[in-house]
Amino acid sequence: MMKSIDVCLSPDLMHLYDVRESTVVVVDVLRATSCMVTAFAHGTQSITPYSDLEECKAARSKGFITSGERDGKKADGFDKGNSPFEYMGEDIRDKKIAFTTTNGTEAIHRARAAKKLVVGSFLNLSAVVSELLSGESGVLVVCAGWKGRFNLEDTLFAGAVVERLKDHFEPECDAPLAAQRLYNLARHDMLQFLSNSAHVRRLARLNIHKDIAFCLTEDRYSVVPSLASGVLTA
Amino acid sequence: MMKSIDVCLSPDLMHLYDVRESTVVVVDVLRATSCMVTAFAHGTQSITPYSDLEECKAARSKGFITSGERDGKKADGFDKGNSPFEYMGEDIRDKKIAFTTTNGTEAIHRARAAKKLVVGSFLNLSAVVSELLSGESGVLVVCAGWKGRFNLEDTLFAGAVVERLKDHFEPECDAPLAAQRLYNLARHDMLQFLSNSAHVRRLARLNIHKDIAFCLTEDRYSVVPSLASGVLTA
Repeated sequence: MMKSIDVCLSPDLMHLYDVRESTVVVVDVLRATSCMVTAFAHGTQSITPYSDLEECKAARSKGFITSGERDGKKADGFDKGNSPFEYMGEDIRDKKIAFTTTNGTEAIHRARAAKKLVVGSFLNLSAVVSELLSGESGVLVVCAGWKGRFNLEDTLFAGAVVERLKDHFEPECDAPLAAQRLYNLARHDMLQFLSNSAHVRRLARLNIHKDIAFCLTEDRYSVVPSLASGVLTA
Repeated sequence: MMKSIDVCLSPDLMHLYDVRESTVVVVDVLRATSCMVTAFAHGTQSITPYSDLEECKAARSKGFITSGERDGKKADGFDKGNSPFEYMGEDIRDKKIAFTTTNGTEAIHRARAAKKLVVGSFLNLSAVVSELLSGESGVLVVCAGWKGRFNLEDTLFAGAVVERLKDHFEPECDAPLAAQRLYNLARHDMLQFLSNSAHVRRLARLNIHKDIAFCLTEDRYSVVPSLASGVLTA
């Protein structure tokens, strides 16, 4: 029997899915999971996702580098924000990071009951796909969205996973089919396809075109961060 | 300033939207809102949507025709089920119908705080679009989905509305953009596009191909049912 693949288009729909027997891929393309993958590719030891801003900030006293983003901007009092270019230097090598973002860390929190939880982004797409192919479980891709709402970029990532796995995994309902259709429509120029999307326009106002282009690059890294006891490691 | 248009992809995301100043279009293409539109086009006086099956059934004692569907099938003890072909005869003319379905009537219930609530389907697409164009309010299309999940056919209808209104309404976030893209991909052969969708496969097992083809027909009727005090009239 073929394994199944499903897509949860918003963390606010997580109550519809029983993930205890599934491998969950959490994705927040712009930019939380892209940052996390970049950090691990540059030698970060661990990332602990926090839902609460203050709790995350307080982790500094326990030796963590603190990363905080709210509404697309670096949050006050944090060491780092939510740009992947902040996670490429020697300063994060072998360090522990405490991470909180508007959508991505909350999505990880809601999916934490998964049999296995991995972090996906276009940057490590092929590595994630290989991991899913080698596993025994069904797959649920959880899109972080924007404050509970559907977003295009995370859906495109979900569609890319469905497309790459189509000979081995069967779509569970309509969400994976829609994601796959959208990805196949967008894949040859995702930046153009996303140019009128809400979050891309939001980020463009913050002058981070470079981040967006970077986050849409497929297969730059081969790490697959996964969660155990509330902590991500590569 | 352009009016805004948004799409709620599942009734389980209704908490994200404040509809008190909006015109809401509730759609359940397969088949609740297609049945309702068909019934009004054939002279039904009113339709009262019920969330609760037993409450709906009990309305018979107050002179209602009762219509009940659960999981795609006619529910026990009801006069009618959820096929549009049941709502074309003289037996429903000038009658009041009490209606409950798995998804459609629940979506109406959750959107009932709207400034104005109308019922849409491909069957009355142009009539709905004209109504929205003539109104002053922003628009939210609420897709009934399947038990809280995203479905393709309701999303295609939402996309059709966005496409038809694109010169007059601005998309509020990514959901209307995705719906519009999918509709433009599907519009020339919706039946084919939907052939591997979950609900179409579910209904195909119930042998209602004729219903599906009918429900995907654009502009057969010109009625626009709307809700006032919990009751739909044309």
